[in-house]
Amino acid sequence: MLVNGKPYRTVWLEGTNPPRVRIIDQRYLPFRFVVETLEDVASTAIAIKEMHVRGAGCIGATAGFGMYLAALEAIRHSDPLQALRGFAEQLKTTRPTAVNLAWAVDRQFQVLEKAGSPDGWVAIALETARNIADEDAHSCQEIGRHGLPLIQEVASRKCAGAPVNILTHCNAGWLAFVDYGSATSPIYAAHDAGIPVHVWVDETRPRNQGARLTAWELASHGVSHTVISDNAGGHLMQHGQVDLVITGTDRTTYTGDVANKIGTYLKALAAMDNGVPFYVALPSSTFDWEIADGIHGIPIEERPAKEVTHVSGLVSGACGEDETTLQILPSGSAASNPAFDVTPARLVTGLITERGICTATEEGIARLFPGFRECSSHSALQLATPKT
Amino acid sequence: MLVNGKPYRTVWLEGTNPPRVRIIDQRYLPFRFVVETLEDVASTAIAIKEMHVRGAGCIGATAGFGMYLAALEAIRHSDPLQALRGFAEQLKTTRPTAVNLAWAVDRQFQVLEKAGSPDGWVAIALETARNIADEDAHSCQEIGRHGLPLIQEVASRKCAGAPVNILTHCNAGWLAFVDYGSATSPIYAAHDAGIPVHVWVDETRPRNQGARLTAWELASHGVSHTVISDNAGGHLMQHGQVDLVITGTDRTTYTGDVANKIGTYLKALAAMDNGVPFYVALPSSTFDWEIADGIHGIPIEERPAKEVTHVSGLVSGACGEDETTLQILPSGSAASNPAFDVTPARLVTGLITERGICTATEEGIARLFPGFRECSSHSALQLATPKT
Repeated sequence: MLVNGKPYRTVWLEGTNPPRVRIIDQRYLPFRFVVETLEDVASTAIAIKEMHVRGAGCIGATAGFGMYLAALEAIRHSDPLQALRGFAEQLKTTRPTAVNLAWAVDRQFQVLEKAGSPDGWVAIALETARNIADEDAHSCQEIGRHGLPLIQEVASRKCAGAPVNILTHCNAGWLAFVDYGSATSPIYAAHDAGIPVHVWVDETRPRNQGARLTAWELASHGVSHTVISDNAGGHLMQHGQVDLVITGTDRTTYTGDVANKIGTYLKALAAMDNGVPFYVALPSSTFDWEIADGIHGIPIEERPAKEVTHVSGLVSGACGEDETTLQILPSGSAASNPAFDVTPARLVTGLITERGICTATEEGIARLFPGFRECSSHSALQLATPKT
Repeated sequence: MLVNGKPYRTVWLEGTNPPRVRIIDQRYLPFRFVVETLEDVASTAIAIKEMHVRGAGCIGATAGFGMYLAALEAIRHSDPLQALRGFAEQLKTTRPTAVNLAWAVDRQFQVLEKAGSPDGWVAIALETARNIADEDAHSCQEIGRHGLPLIQEVASRKCAGAPVNILTHCNAGWLAFVDYGSATSPIYAAHDAGIPVHVWVDETRPRNQGARLTAWELASHGVSHTVISDNAGGHLMQHGQVDLVITGTDRTTYTGDVANKIGTYLKALAAMDNGVPFYVALPSSTFDWEIADGIHGIPIEERPAKEVTHVSGLVSGACGEDETTLQILPSGSAASNPAFDVTPARLVTGLITERGICTATEEGIARLFPGFRECSSHSALQLATPKT
């Protein structure tokens, strides 16, 4: 999407002989736009581990490019396959629970192993890395294509020029993928199609991904938006100021229960109470084909209390502006920080996937993805990958 | 309640000839405990206007003591009644929408005007100010007495020693009144009665009254508590970690609709969805006897966007620790800040008042406060004042 009028992806190639891997170092957003060059496997591993990149699709694609850098290094070793295996392990252990990361690294490793002679590795790894990134972008673009009519339909019921008001929580934007995003993809599609849209951006405490990343994304692409405290969404819905809610998801059961950033459940309750449609956008790689009961089956990560007790932002000082961290709780008070919650399927109007929209039910999901649950012992991600 | 083991009120008298008025300057909480002496009407007006004190009960009591300082000054003027009238106006315009403020000032003025000769003013004003403060404290204490059995009942169903988990939003604590608080009063009563309680404190963005004030209060009095992001409550309720919700209210209609800090409505929805009792604690002066439909009838204050775009806290620097303010949004993003929302009566299990508990219905409220609605053209506050 656009940054300062120029189209960007979160990870891309630049130059030739050999092409170099560049990423947006997201740690500095929204206050500084920093592009980093990944020189080798080691710097790629650091970029993933220390969250220069984050978000399932973005991590997967960066790991894909990391394996291209691994091929460049491995062919100079006496035992290239052994070296490649070591690099693959190094990348996979950076964030052990990131499904897309292991999937991308394994996909690269298997293709290269099958290729036999290391002579062709660099070209093959480059092509595979490009494919992984393009598939992610294509999948998100398709989510936008399928979600767009939902926004068009609301717009058609409004007075000419009145914006469609969409509320979103956390960052399910292009920064979390390679391009377009999941929840944001229908929004960008509508904006680019000339439909007036306005986005209510939940700040998304405690890490403020909405205030920091979603707001920055939307501002950079020129989409009208207003940041609100996470407390405000219910009030806005009561007063007819929200036409549609679209969020992303970190994991969705095959029955339609949606795990997403903490607080999503509260917005789904308010949407139901006020008759506001609540949609969840996801590439099908996000489906969990094993778990039936999301509330009791999906483990919820408890993150460090410091994310609640402290907050980061920009401070103006004698030496200009700088990012710093404040303590916002009294020192004698403990904090707890569950990072996700589960929205039961009954509160979800529909799921927007790269194959179309379905109800958040076992039947609806199975109709759009026939055979996926049965094959879930194989890689769901591999099945979900569009065959382009 | 206790601060460093010593009982405090938010506003009190100290010494003799004449007694001096002291307040806790709440602007510095939770990082510094500062006591301020109100020397005259001017410093009282500043303390109210610039929110050294806040909260309906606390503002009312401070204004009551402000009129005692006014009496001290007025009797030295050539036209004491004219001077007193001027001081009353000065105090009343500091926060024009604070009902308790105007009520306390008017009560003092009427009593002094009736007394005739200014000779007795100081003694009378002192007594009236003491009464206003004592009545507020007594009213809150009664809320605690009536709410305590709710907590005892939950405790009786638990294993011995297992704490009763209570969630609260914003600060309806003793800092908002003279003592005890409204929502916190049953909690302090339970704690002081030896019942193990644990409080989930919503941080309450954007002004963080939960993280700053409620957490400090509870810590100071030794009550076990954990601060959470406003997003977390629903998840905790889904997993049986909340036994009871108790919040305060800024205005409750005679039909039981509850206006309170933004986000309260979302917690009420989650409580209903999970079968968790949702109680609202209030002195009856908070009832609005005119408005039937809270959602469409109660005006909601839109506060400055800067409360959303910036956050205050403690920063450690070369010169020690200091409170400062950070920008947390990208400069190109707008913010909106509705300060309250309305929880419809259907989501409220009961109202805890100084007269007992009633359902959040017109019938339930009228049974506990017969004649109040009919007399609403007179001062509801005056009627609600216990006749002690």
